Amino acid sequence: MGLLFRKEDIDSLALGSAVLGSGGGGNPYIGALLLRRAMESTSVSRVEITPFDEVDDSDFLICSAGMGSPAIGIEKIPNGSEYLRSFRGLESYVERKATHVSPIEIGGINSLVPLVVSVHSGLPVADGDGEGRAFPELQMTTFCGLGYSAAPVCMIEERGNTLIVNGISDWWTEKIARTVTVSFGGRAEVALYSLGGSDYRKGAIPGTLSKALEIGESLNDGIRNKSAEDSLSRSCHASLLFAGKLVDVKRYNTRGFAIGHAFLEGFDSYSHQQLKISFQNEYLLATLRSDNESKVIESTPNIISIHDESTLLPITTDQLRYGMRCRVFSIPIHKKWLFEGAEKLVGLGAFKLE
Amino acid sequence: MGLLFRKEDIDSLALGSAVLGSGGGGNPYIGALLLRRAMESTSVSRVEITPFDEVDDSDFLICSAGMGSPAIGIEKIPNGSEYLRSFRGLESYVERKATHVSPIEIGGINSLVPLVVSVHSGLPVADGDGEGRAFPELQMTTFCGLGYSAAPVCMIEERGNTLIVNGISDWWTEKIARTVTVSFGGRAEVALYSLGGSDYRKGAIPGTLSKALEIGESLNDGIRNKSAEDSLSRSCHASLLFAGKLVDVKRYNTRGFAIGHAFLEGFDSYSHQQLKISFQNEYLLATLRSDNESKVIESTPNIISIHDESTLLPITTDQLRYGMRCRVFSIPIHKKWLFEGAEKLVGLGAFKLE
Repeated sequence: MGLLFRKEDIDSLALGSAVLGSGGGGNPYIGALLLRRAMESTSVSRVEITPFDEVDDSDFLICSAGMGSPAIGIEKIPNGSEYLRSFRGLESYVERKATHVSPIEIGGINSLVPLVVSVHSGLPVADGDGEGRAFPELQMTTFCGLGYSAAPVCMIEERGNTLIVNGISDWWTEKIARTVTVSFGGRAEVALYSLGGSDYRKGAIPGTLSKALEIGESLNDGIRNKSAEDSLSRSCHASLLFAGKLVDVKRYNTRGFAIGHAFLEGFDSYSHQQLKISFQNEYLLATLRSDNESKVIESTPNIISIHDESTLLPITTDQLRYGMRCRVFSIPIHKKWLFEGAEKLVGLGAFKLE
Repeated sequence: MGLLFRKEDIDSLALGSAVLGSGGGGNPYIGALLLRRAMESTSVSRVEITPFDEVDDSDFLICSAGMGSPAIGIEKIPNGSEYLRSFRGLESYVERKATHVSPIEIGGINSLVPLVVSVHSGLPVADGDGEGRAFPELQMTTFCGLGYSAAPVCMIEERGNTLIVNGISDWWTEKIARTVTVSFGGRAEVALYSLGGSDYRKGAIPGTLSKALEIGESLNDGIRNKSAEDSLSRSCHASLLFAGKLVDVKRYNTRGFAIGHAFLEGFDSYSHQQLKISFQNEYLLATLRSDNESKVIESTPNIISIHDESTLLPITTDQLRYGMRCRVFSIPIHKKWLFEGAEKLVGLGAFKLE
């Protein structure tokens, strides 16, 4: 029995996805706009979500996503047709029609993109993804870690330029696709990880779309009932790391990413302490400084989520600005990441933080 | 009746192509090595060259070439299989088998590449190309100027990474493909401009391969008979622009090109004069300085060819070095370039010379 996703669910899905997105995966406001516009312009009122266990061996799935710097993503907004075009482009290249579209990651835009494709194609969305959160590079997935290839990747952008990238490894596919994304102006829309149903179930993280929706609904309820932190704790085991005011942001759009550091000056029980959060599209490393000590208190692959102190809404990397009063949470990564080699793929050493 | 190209012709074709290459299109020594190796490793002793007028309406042609900075091309040498692989990749993408392979330009490597593909595929080579010389960017062709598209382009490199680039214009296709070439390390092998026979005859410059061979044979004869300048004058209407010693070279591998300037200090009747030759892969602009005057004496689209004073062999941009004693020639461009819009495509304003 599939879940029927309705227009009323859009904001909760975007919200919960932004929580799991670790600051990346796209701005949830834009993600919600994209899906709302797709549903309103087509009068499609519901999207069928196929439960993970109901993905059949004979099914064929393709992941759909946006790629590039989130800081550019809030200015270079897709017109909405790119996702389906890259999806169809990949179907055409591999000469096989997909039965489902899947997210590649969970984040404010990238969780919603497969639903946009679904609205335009009528295909159901599989309830799983390759990260259970968002990561900046396209090989940073459980698919890749468990032996499945991102390539061929179909890339497109709003003008209509398209490519098929067939790297000899996911590392090369990422390198080439990233370079092309930069030449497009910093954002591209991609279809990738085309997988048979059995491989999809082996490689993907189950139930992450419905989980993101649940987190979003729970957080919305919590915000209404002034128990938002409890909601976060219950729905995704979020635990408070730090509370402080954002006193500086160093952010560079470089090499196709938003790379930088956010600096917070602690308040309440964290006064006289500073937190430095380093990011490459996503928050990846939290370093606490007090007196003359410096200590890593959380790092990738666990999720680091920054929330506004008063609204408890998540603040993605593109939204960071001076003066924000924040509460910073840690959320444990999905256990599907507990395989040999995961550290090499998504551990701290895999990132560009300088 | 086709021309049968033999192994003994390799050096002459490479030599004549380097003359027409305006300093680019690849180093003729490497071009000759690539073709010699292909012929020797396969025991193919002859390549069929199809006369331009015998390309039939029902034929289907694909151009094959190397792309990137010539200065990198002398270090990052293809293993020779890339050209056929990109050629087959494009055939597969457009779902049509080619009847002929064609050069896209005339130059020390790129004239010979289609013959390498021919050796490995058995396909004849069409006696024409899209430039009648070499130009640095893939839209700088009579094909493009006369309305035919470079895309789709199949790109490959020695490791096996492959792409299909489908730009919305040749300008975009060039921009994307150039970026990818840089990510490959500065050189790529490409198949592009897939055209029906009738379109090919409309868009291509006729007889340029056999012309390059004739120029090379004539120059070789001239060098033996101490009448090399007469040979150049007779075979390609070359006229002397300048004679001088190379006193400085500024060359930058940047944006996927070798961009720079060569400075010559005149001797003989050119003493007390200086010549500055500006290049983007190819020599594009010759500026004469004497006393306090500065005057352009030749510029793109005409061919500028620098030759060693004693051997009269052409010096490609990658070979320029301090102390060389040179004779600089101007060679008129093929009249197929005399169409409206050619200036915009290959006039001085189209290039990156700073």
